[in-house]
Amino acid sequence: MTQHKYLLPESEMPTQWYNIVPDLPEPPPPALHPGTREPAGPDDFAPLFPMDLIMQEVTQDSYVDIPGEVMDIYKIWRPSPLFRAHRLEKLLDTPAKIFYKYEGVSPAGSHKPNTSVPQAYYNAKAGIKKLTTETGAGQWGSSLAFACAQFGLECEVWQVAASYKLKPYRKTMMEVWGAEVHPSPSDLTEFGRQLLAADPDHPGSLGIAISEAVAMAVESDEIRYALGSVLNHVLMHQTIIGEEALLQMQMAGETPDVLVGCTGGGSNFGGLSFPFLREKLKGNMDPTIRCVEPAACPSLTKGEYRYDFGDSAGMTPLMKMHTLGHDFIPDPIHAGGLRYHGMSPLVSHIYELGLVEAESIGQTECFNGALQFAKTEGIVPAPEPTHAIAAAIREANRCKETGEEKVILTALCGHGHLDLASYDQFLRGEVEDSTWDPQQMADAIATVPVV
Amino acid sequence: MTQHKYLLPESEMPTQWYNIVPDLPEPPPPALHPGTREPAGPDDFAPLFPMDLIMQEVTQDSYVDIPGEVMDIYKIWRPSPLFRAHRLEKLLDTPAKIFYKYEGVSPAGSHKPNTSVPQAYYNAKAGIKKLTTETGAGQWGSSLAFACAQFGLECEVWQVAASYKLKPYRKTMMEVWGAEVHPSPSDLTEFGRQLLAADPDHPGSLGIAISEAVAMAVESDEIRYALGSVLNHVLMHQTIIGEEALLQMQMAGETPDVLVGCTGGGSNFGGLSFPFLREKLKGNMDPTIRCVEPAACPSLTKGEYRYDFGDSAGMTPLMKMHTLGHDFIPDPIHAGGLRYHGMSPLVSHIYELGLVEAESIGQTECFNGALQFAKTEGIVPAPEPTHAIAAAIREANRCKETGEEKVILTALCGHGHLDLASYDQFLRGEVEDSTWDPQQMADAIATVPVV
Repeated sequence: MTQHKYLLPESEMPTQWYNIVPDLPEPPPPALHPGTREPAGPDDFAPLFPMDLIMQEVTQDSYVDIPGEVMDIYKIWRPSPLFRAHRLEKLLDTPAKIFYKYEGVSPAGSHKPNTSVPQAYYNAKAGIKKLTTETGAGQWGSSLAFACAQFGLECEVWQVAASYKLKPYRKTMMEVWGAEVHPSPSDLTEFGRQLLAADPDHPGSLGIAISEAVAMAVESDEIRYALGSVLNHVLMHQTIIGEEALLQMQMAGETPDVLVGCTGGGSNFGGLSFPFLREKLKGNMDPTIRCVEPAACPSLTKGEYRYDFGDSAGMTPLMKMHTLGHDFIPDPIHAGGLRYHGMSPLVSHIYELGLVEAESIGQTECFNGALQFAKTEGIVPAPEPTHAIAAAIREANRCKETGEEKVILTALCGHGHLDLASYDQFLRGEVEDSTWDPQQMADAIATVPVV
Repeated sequence: MTQHKYLLPESEMPTQWYNIVPDLPEPPPPALHPGTREPAGPDDFAPLFPMDLIMQEVTQDSYVDIPGEVMDIYKIWRPSPLFRAHRLEKLLDTPAKIFYKYEGVSPAGSHKPNTSVPQAYYNAKAGIKKLTTETGAGQWGSSLAFACAQFGLECEVWQVAASYKLKPYRKTMMEVWGAEVHPSPSDLTEFGRQLLAADPDHPGSLGIAISEAVAMAVESDEIRYALGSVLNHVLMHQTIIGEEALLQMQMAGETPDVLVGCTGGGSNFGGLSFPFLREKLKGNMDPTIRCVEPAACPSLTKGEYRYDFGDSAGMTPLMKMHTLGHDFIPDPIHAGGLRYHGMSPLVSHIYELGLVEAESIGQTECFNGALQFAKTEGIVPAPEPTHAIAAAIREANRCKETGEEKVILTALCGHGHLDLASYDQFLRGEVEDSTWDPQQMADAIATVPVV
């Protein structure tokens, strides 16, 4: 009988996060202070984050020890399983071998708790009482709510108003873990009040919700802000995924030829791929590494590489990244977690260095791949990783044509139990491929300050 | 650092199901043909089930080999993890050690695929083309839909109309796996049409949905029926839970003093407890084994032990079991899976023999326990296993008073990702303790044939 999954015992869970920055041929460009436009120093981030996280953001160490308190909580779901998709391979009739690392086993159902737990830990250690954040579909907000409950922190979440109304159960999940949830824009911040005055039914956006969460955090010494993707320390926390997957691929006796990961802010992709990129840079393996983004929000494949704000109100430091413009509002798609206007500066830099590739896929191809996956592998994927699945299926189908027995590795970063309304629309034939609008991007880019 | 979970590698997964019947001091009473009232033979079940399952229903063998094709699918999620609830213990400040076996890792999110997969396998092997079944909250229907997808069987599900309307996402999940779902009562069966003629908005019940699914199955040689609980072969398939848990408790170096499991039809409880009961009967351990049922549907603690039908229309064989009467309609509670009017004949018999205890708990105590559990252990439980959690917490609190360091083992038979509407109502203060009505039971029992 064939082996379906590769499990590490808790005793073999990696005990360090990996920081890829010192291994890159060139360092990434620094973040800039939004006012002075000078490189931002640790103190500039202090109103937002505790110093331990700021130092992780800029560290030149290749490895950072995972604190014991974080390890204890990771062990609720980590090490996560690596699966061989035998049954999907058979359906596709491909000579390729498809492996997927599954992060849906976490309490919140995605990879996000890999960073929410250490973020909550370092904030609690610094004496912070409350964390604020934004969330779109709710994956990040629920992950932070879970983490805050573990360390006795309060948690306040601004959820994009459209999602708040359409996905009430993610809100309930946050409340089960004790968080307070507001629709964004809200009347709790000046920026929110301005937007509501102009449009009482404003649907909100991730950039707006970030602005509101940041505004609340900087008001008090006892409150800090937590971001679920984009930043270096967030991607570093996620490398636990790739470090485990490296060990599990060894258990399976295979080396990946192709790695594909979906990219929204870049944390899932970076988490899986950076440890493999390290091995590639060392010459130990030579996989093709590919980002997959939605056709409706193609920051890597269509965006400009330039300094831009992380939020809509322009309160965050300026970061050099692939961006569609911080005012860009992507078409509504079901993969709410992939609708961010920018891309992680670190992933953007690595893409510019030519170390990784990128492609974009429309959502109907993604849902079709998801149905093939669910009927064979059993797991119903969240809309975000359906992009990774569709890309893996594309690769497996190419292998069928060429006869190549490639080893494909991807990350199934979350389950779709709270996204079944999306599947329902797709099954009823009501899901279309959204497109992106070059003119809207040009207009949005025009408002980005030239640095 | 403490160990949180105990994982078995796939290579150590048990390869046999356990049949407790030959180990009992007395055999359970036979099922009776609904017409002749004579003990039902294998041929009487043939219109409903394939012969392999019928022989498992009546086998005197202590062990049945799990087919390789079933093992291959079990490995999508099995062996399932056993957790030590360190964080819950700390919150309760109890000297007790609480372990829970978690079945929410299955594709459908509950223990039900442990039996849906072999049921689909044996039906496919017998040349059957389609399976019909009923479902309440949707756990069983989605599990059978998943299993049928694995073996290329069609799947048709009658979902209790009230659930069909209130829980649309379980229906979507079934459709993702390719099943056809009808609200019950439906206009597809004579019994359904009668009920709809009397009340076009009939809310349905599990007993009615069983009658409809059975009626469709007996019409064709290519269609059979699948039941998700109650019967001997179903409970036997679920013993994979307890067999794994025995090995995992050994890994943890602990022997349970108390086992608690929630009971609706009895399959989750039997699955966990029967292998431990075997060890108890052999004198290898001496745990107290306790069923926990909802106060609103107390078949074991308040029902009568007598022959009754499994469905509302009186089409199934008569089974000797604890019953509230096949016409009994329990108060609506959130644990839809625990609202069956009867109890597994095998669990009923074992309860009559005095080998297990039973208690009932109201749903507000269960939800309160669930919140404590979610905030510490991370997992949001389905409403059904909140009963087991509440019972485990009761036991742990008793240990706090007495100072006893008891080892408590329970089964967390599913997650609550599709039950967050229930949590939302509870958090808003809108959930009350339903009660059962002795007069309604007396009236229902009065319609049960005297055998």
